[in-house]
Amino acid sequence: MQYYSKQISDLIGELTTLPGVGSKSAQRLAFYILNMPRDRANSLAKSIIDARENVKFCKECFTLTDRDVCPICQSAKRNKRQIMVVEDTRDLVAYEKVGKYEGVYHVLNGTMNPMQGIGPNDIRIKELFERLQKEEVEEVIIATNSTTEGEATAMYITKLIKPSGIKVTRIASGVPVGGDLECIDEVTLLRALEGRQEL
Amino acid sequence: MQYYSKQISDLIGELTTLPGVGSKSAQRLAFYILNMPRDRANSLAKSIIDARENVKFCKECFTLTDRDVCPICQSAKRNKRQIMVVEDTRDLVAYEKVGKYEGVYHVLNGTMNPMQGIGPNDIRIKELFERLQKEEVEEVIIATNSTTEGEATAMYITKLIKPSGIKVTRIASGVPVGGDLECIDEVTLLRALEGRQEL
Repeated sequence: MQYYSKQISDLIGELTTLPGVGSKSAQRLAFYILNMPRDRANSLAKSIIDARENVKFCKECFTLTDRDVCPICQSAKRNKRQIMVVEDTRDLVAYEKVGKYEGVYHVLNGTMNPMQGIGPNDIRIKELFERLQKEEVEEVIIATNSTTEGEATAMYITKLIKPSGIKVTRIASGVPVGGDLECIDEVTLLRALEGRQEL
Repeated sequence: MQYYSKQISDLIGELTTLPGVGSKSAQRLAFYILNMPRDRANSLAKSIIDARENVKFCKECFTLTDRDVCPICQSAKRNKRQIMVVEDTRDLVAYEKVGKYEGVYHVLNGTMNPMQGIGPNDIRIKELFERLQKEEVEEVIIATNSTTEGEATAMYITKLIKPSGIKVTRIASGVPVGGDLECIDEVTLLRALEGRQEL
């Protein structure tokens, strides 16, 4: 039995497929959209189409961008001999916001995840090696997340690069700044201990 | 400084305006959309436009529907002498899902809220009175939410209808079925006591 008219059900159905949107919040969003001024609803729809149509992968680093080559890869100010490997464009932006990193990036667009059938060929690892062969790179900084999949991906890439003699580093893991020791999990505490540095 | 390309920022900006979507979840949704197959992103956008273009208020009861008069108001099986007043279409659907109510509805599309400048003329109260004058109605069941605004709206409507001699009722408030007394707030407990019925 259909309680809502077709367009409302369709909209709720589409919204339910989004991550973190359950059936209750899909209904709430749908009714919010139905009550929006028409031009705002159109501009929301347009932004979805525009983004999906015009955003593509940078040919160099595979970040999401509207150009063939992203502004970072095009910039003469960035150090092309240092490549930071990140999982996705949001991680790149997180480091760009810090504003201290002057090298370039390589965006994997995923992590290896055998449980979901995502192997090394499903993320941009091959493209990373092509860059390492083509360009003169001194250091690869692996900045995948500190999750099981992120760590496994970091290890896999490290093993493959090591023989070439290029320096491979991993961003530090440990207690976050401002973090309260008693609230932090055991694995992180152990990592922080292992990674201790002399003062 | 713009870290994302324009289309991505625009999409994140549009998504941030939705209720319950903060900047982090807008980013997550935006990247999910960017990674959707193109036809799925188009169908999401289309469902927003379709709903906003085709859904309107029923001329009788002001529920959101794609017809001039909604299926409930059109149905010969529904008792037109009993009108249940609800705040919005979702509340109507909640009672339709129960499936026991055989009367019709009147959807206010809001509640009176002086703090937000929403007065009686901003919701469909006038239209309710026009119905009561035009049709022969025996009972108005007020089913606005049990919130401050819902209660104030219920009182306001009651005062206006009473003089006409039409029976006005309010849905019961009390302990929800399956509710644990010790977890229920004092106002609800008091209401449940006041509304006690002989067994």
